[in-house]
Order: sequence, then C-alpha cells, then structure tokens
Amino acid sequence: MSPPTGDPQPATGGATHASWVAGAPGSLFDVDCLPYGSFRVGSGPAALGVRIGEQVLAVGPLAQATGAPFASALAGPNLDSLLAAGPAVWAEVRGWLAGILTDGSYRESVSPHLVPLDRVTLHLPFTVADYVDFYSSEHHATNVGRIFRPDGAALPAAWKHLPIGYHGRAGTVVVSGTAIRRPSGLRRAGAEVGFGPCLRLDIEAEVGFVVGAGSTLGQPVSAASFDQHVFGVCLVNDWSARDIQAFEYVPLGPFLGKSFATSISGWVLPLAALEAARVTAPVQEPAPAAYLTGGADWGLDLALEVEWNGEIVARPPFAQMYWTPAQQLAHLTVNGASLRPGDLYASGTVSGPGRAERGSFLELSWGGRDAVLVAGEERTFLADGDTVVLRATAPSGGGGRIGLGEVSGTVLPALAT
Amino acid sequence: MSPPTGDPQPATGGATHASWVAGAPGSLFDVDCLPYGSFRVGSGPAALGVRIGEQVLAVGPLAQATGAPFASALAGPNLDSLLAAGPAVWAEVRGWLAGILTDGSYRESVSPHLVPLDRVTLHLPFTVADYVDFYSSEHHATNVGRIFRPDGAALPAAWKHLPIGYHGRAGTVVVSGTAIRRPSGLRRAGAEVGFGPCLRLDIEAEVGFVVGAGSTLGQPVSAASFDQHVFGVCLVNDWSARDIQAFEYVPLGPFLGKSFATSISGWVLPLAALEAARVTAPVQEPAPAAYLTGGADWGLDLALEVEWNGEIVARPPFAQMYWTPAQQLAHLTVNGASLRPGDLYASGTVSGPGRAERGSFLELSWGGRDAVLVAGEERTFLADGDTVVLRATAPSGGGGRIGLGEVSGTVLPALAT
Repeated sequence: MSPPTGDPQPATGGATHASWVAGAPGSLFDVDCLPYGSFRVGSGPAALGVRIGEQVLAVGPLAQATGAPFASALAGPNLDSLLAAGPAVWAEVRGWLAGILTDGSYRESVSPHLVPLDRVTLHLPFTVADYVDFYSSEHHATNVGRIFRPDGAALPAAWKHLPIGYHGRAGTVVVSGTAIRRPSGLRRAGAEVGFGPCLRLDIEAEVGFVVGAGSTLGQPVSAASFDQHVFGVCLVNDWSARDIQAFEYVPLGPFLGKSFATSISGWVLPLAALEAARVTAPVQEPAPAAYLTGGADWGLDLALEVEWNGEIVARPPFAQMYWTPAQQLAHLTVNGASLRPGDLYASGTVSGPGRAERGSFLELSWGGRDAVLVAGEERTFLADGDTVVLRATAPSGGGGRIGLGEVSGTVLPALAT
Repeated sequence: MSPPTGDPQPATGGATHASWVAGAPGSLFDVDCLPYGSFRVGSGPAALGVRIGEQVLAVGPLAQATGAPFASALAGPNLDSLLAAGPAVWAEVRGWLAGILTDGSYRESVSPHLVPLDRVTLHLPFTVADYVDFYSSEHHATNVGRIFRPDGAALPAAWKHLPIGYHGRAGTVVVSGTAIRRPSGLRRAGAEVGFGPCLRLDIEAEVGFVVGAGSTLGQPVSAASFDQHVFGVCLVNDWSARDIQAFEYVPLGPFLGKSFATSISGWVLPLAALEAARVTAPVQEPAPAAYLTGGADWGLDLALEVEWNGEIVARPPFAQMYWTPAQQLAHLTVNGASLRPGDLYASGTVSGPGRAERGSFLELSWGGRDAVLVAGEERTFLADGDTVVLRATAPSGGGGRIGLGEVSGTVLPALAT
C-alpha cells in the first residue's frame, strides 16, 4: 500500500476523523490541528515537520517518496517554501495530511516518517521577514493608559479609529525555549538618568499571524482577502523592558525596550484549523473607516494562559480583542506597503476585563504597585531565573479543542556592566 | 598578462593613484571611491558591480577568472555574500580592485568586464534585513519640535541622552528610481477624521549605514568596533506622509506614515573610502553614557544636496549630526539586540542650522506655512509628478572629492479610493 500521490482531500476544519497515530485521538494535536514546525533530531539537518499527537511527521521525505506535486514546498528546513506557495497549495497539503493520518491503510508507509516529540529540537518555524506589533486589546490599552496617565484619557486619540501598531526587530525573533538575557540600558531613576540592567522586565502575551502569500508594492490588501495571504498563527511573547521603554519612547515609539528578544512558539497552526474558533469581534464604535469594516468576522476564540514559574497567573481571552487580525492586515497595507512571505504581525497584549485575564505583569501588578504571589514568592516584574510559558487552545469543530503549543523563556541575569 | 590572484594590496583611503579607466580620473568615481551595486544588462541576470568613472566593473566573473580566494564573495547577484564575508575580505577585495584599476598592465584583461553605466539598470544593492531609522540631527529635531510644539521644549527629554530611533519596514526599501505611489490613510482634517490621499507628502534626506558582519544575540557591539561591523554607506530618502504620521504616532511611533516606501541609492560606498571624511562630532553636553562615548570620532563630512524638480533647494551638512553612526550602532545593540548582514540603519533627517540646509520640506516650508519656490512654482509638500533627487559627496585623501551617487524618486498619484 503506497501513500496517496497528493490528490486534494477536503481540509478538516473540525474533528471529522481521528488519527490512527497512537496518542493523537482526544489530544490537542489530533488531525483537526496539524501545526507546522522546523525540527532536528540530534545534530541532523533541520526539516519541516507536522505535529500529530506526541509525534512529529517528517513531511518532506514522505511527500518526496509519494511523488506528491507539492513535494518541493515541503522539502526545505522550515515553512518558508510552503508559505510562498500560496493558499491553494496550503489547502492541498492539509487535505493530503488529513487523509494519510486518518486512513489506517497508510500506517505502514507513513510510520517510518514519525519521530517522537521528545527526540526533536524545534527551531524557528520560518524566516521572519518584517515583524509588526499591534496594540489591539481595549482592556490592555485602557489599563496601560490608567497606569501611566491616571488623570488623562485612558486611550490614545486614534485608538478607536485604527489598529495602532509599529515595526519591531525581525532579527531578534527567537523560538520558544531560547533563554532571554536581561537587557541593560538608560532609564530614569528619580531625577537621574542612569545606565544599568532593566528593573522592570515584563512579558506580553500575544498571538502572531504569519503571512504566506505576498502582495505588490502600492496595492492595499483588503480585510476580505485575509485568509488568502495569512497562513497561520503562532504564540508570541513580546518581552518588554518597561523602564528602558519609558525613557526612550517619545516621539518615535518603543525601540530598545522591545528589540532585545521576541519569542514565538515552535508550531504554526494553519488558519484552516481555526474555522470553528471564528467569532465576531466586539462592537466597534465609532464605526471604522470602510477599509476596516470587512474583517470583523475574524475574531478568534482562543483561550490563552500565562504560566509564571509553574503557576497559572492569567487566562487572557483572545475573543475580546477589539481589532481583528483581518483588520490589522488591511491597516498594515492600506498605504500600499507590500507583504512578503514570512512577515509576522502580532496582536498586541491580550487582556480581558478581569484581573486574572491580564496578559502583562505591568497590568497584573498595576505598574508595580501590587505584588503578585507566584509560587510562594512576591513578584511585580521578572526576576532572574524566572520562567514564563504561554499556551493557548481553540475550539475544534467536533466539540473538542486543539492546541497552539507553547512559547517559553527563562530570564538570564544581565551581563556585568 | 593575467590579473593578480587576490594578494592583498593596501586599500586606498585617498586618491593615491588614478585609474586607467577613461573618464575616471578627476571624476567623483575614481579608484578612491569604488562603490558596489547590483546591476543588470537588459534582461540578463543580476550581478555585483563596482562603479569606476562612468563604467561598471562586473567583479564576479573577473575574480572567478583570476582564481581570487575571495571570488565566492563576489559571485552573487548583489552585495549579500561580501557583506557576510567580514572586514578582512572587504579590505582584501578593495586592495585588489585598486591594484587592477590603477596598473595599466591589467587593462587588457579587465576591460572585457567593464560595462558602460548607461547600459545597466541598478537593483537593490543588498537584501535588507532589519531597517532602523534614527533622529540624530539636533537642528532637525529642534525644527520639528518648534513646528509642532511652539510653546513646549523643542527636544524630547531623552534626545541628548541617547540617539532616538525606531524600526521601519525592511520589505518596502526600494532602489533609486522606483516610482513612489502617494499613500492614502486616515488623517485629521479640522475636527474630523477622514480617509484619503496623503496631503502632506514629504522627504527626509538621510545617510544609511549598511551592516556587514553580524553579532551574537545578547552581546552589545561597542562603538569602537563600528568599522568591524559596518561595511559602508548609502543615501536614503525616508518618504514621509506627515498627516498620516501625525494622526497615528501616539504612543508607538510612526507606522503607515513611513512604511509605504523608503528609497536608497543604488551604490553602497565602503567605509574605507571615507577615512578622509572623518571629523569629530559636535560637542555633546551632557556627556553621554559610557557606551556612547567611544564613537564621537566617526562624524563624517558628507555634503548632501536636495534637488526638487531639477532645482537644488537644500544642502544639508552631515558633519553637524549630533550622534555619529558609531554611537548609533552601540545604542542599537546595547540591549543585546543582534546584528545581521544586511541590516540598514539611517541617520535621520540631515539638517544644518541654515534655512537652505534643511533636509525635509516640513522644515523648508516650516510646517507648510511658507511656500518654497521650486522651478517657478510654489510648493510646501510634494505634488504628484514631482521628482526628488538626493546626492552627496565627500572629501577624498588627495584633495578631490568622491561621490555617493544619488537616490531619486517621482511621485505617482494616489490610487482611486
């Protein structure tokens, strides 16, 4: 019995079938999930993999062996080729994967290409082209406004007119598990300006959107064509040095307060897996400009969790984000800025209305005023040696849930200065 | 007579010799200049070229034919491989070029690799990794402060403590000659917020610094090692949509007001050509932090000019920049942010104290208040069809001057909305 040769199969938006791979059925990573990553076994070469249960399927060699027409898009060390191949190929590959992983007659030919997850290391799943970070949670932006400007307007004047965003440093996007060196920089201490290690090191729990199909310079991309350009989602921890950022950010925005590292999950979940997670975004008032109206149906009911030294300290609800990723894409390109495969844009910190739904320690500690009890110790911001893990799940079509994996990082002490 | 096989030759910081290439001696592009670019002849493949006079030397095939040890660094379509090869190879190649282009005995073997400049098209000289834009002219920042905040402090509080900067969009950096589509976006008109074509389209005349040798995440790069990491300079026109920028920029900085396009010159001039242009930066008071003290000797006496529809409207003096590119590099990495080959960082608008030394139309027109007479017509900001060309020269060692080439762009009307 040979594997199928790449004939399109219907993509499984929901859990229509369970996989024959042991451990996958009933888990967060059954065939209704199928995220992509870049993995190595030992010191072997990096390869594109798909997670199924607690196994990684080496899709490149399998597609090659079967003569699948899309084999070249899967042959590289990571997602780059598949991203550039565009939405028709994305659907075709997903259909093929669902077929071979649910039909037990493929077990014999597919099994040799499965590697246990605990034998692999994950690398950056794609080459990051441009990295943009938005600021699209009303609860987060309001909290930040109240903390820093208690007597002023909580939201910036433009906030409800457009999804505010800025460019970050693509070259310092790192994969989950990478240790995070505490940055040093200039910051204000009382009336003095001094140099030293960041004293208010923070996280931001975010969701990232990975662009596959590029666009033409000068041509805006509509919100309606979101799923023709965006391949999938990952988790993002936008590490933030609040004291460095506070000193530097007027008038050109965050720079060194963010650029030392941004961590993303090792798995990128295709948008096709999130059909059952789609919700309508909160009512937007005032009504946004025409170019921002089309994408309100791309809210996503993702449940995030923030783990700090082994303890869950927050469960931010992504469904409450004010601006959707489709609106963010339309905004990002409305001035004619072009997209490239590998562009990454993040949602901004995900915070809900409740205290235990806040996606940053700035908010959880209310600017450092209220200590948070973490595994028996009082914390406001991050101490050296602290570990933060972000995770998320989403509803799948069959009433179960699927996983986005996790993004973790441990804080190393600052270099001696 | 065969060309030399790549034995190192002393790099020519000044005009120690003139080239045997007709038209080069006495021009801005003799052997003391030797900028690199990426060129095509007709629909042929892109190749790395070096400008000498009004010719382009196809260095890849020449190095290959001679068996030069660095041939692989010159074989690609652009500067990428040479950038990554590091400073020892940069010096070796420059010495080799100076040798073969000044010793007439190489004329016969080198001449077949020369192409007249008017037969080539230039492409992006390197793949832009991350793009950062600084704000390091005190005159520019003071002018902007006075225009927008006439009753407030002209400079932001942090301005004299550190070189303020932000990340821009690497994917929309385009080569000189690319037409610039007027962007549309949200902006304020009186009390109303509306969508439409930018009404205050501007330029920023800047100098860009191109990183060659990368660095390690978590490890700052000192100002003293500037020339071990930075390969060379180019010209930058940081097109700016002032009305879009003014509405969006609080609190995360410029985004769509800048990201529609940034133009760079087709030629990258190696730092090695600028030894004679080095000057000490203006006195910095208060004294900067220790990590910013080392690079004050990397001021550069570059003479810029801004041509608007054929008329020179400003001559910004780069020597007056407050923060030097070595200080900018140290700042950019002091938080541990790593460098990659192809990183580009721009100086910020270059403005001198005089009215005719201002590097933006925002300043030349004082926020649109004072019309500028350009080729017989009154202008404040850019009209459709306008063409802007930035050029620059620097002193060479022999008392002459060398050229940085030019960056030009013509404004296309906005798309119908």
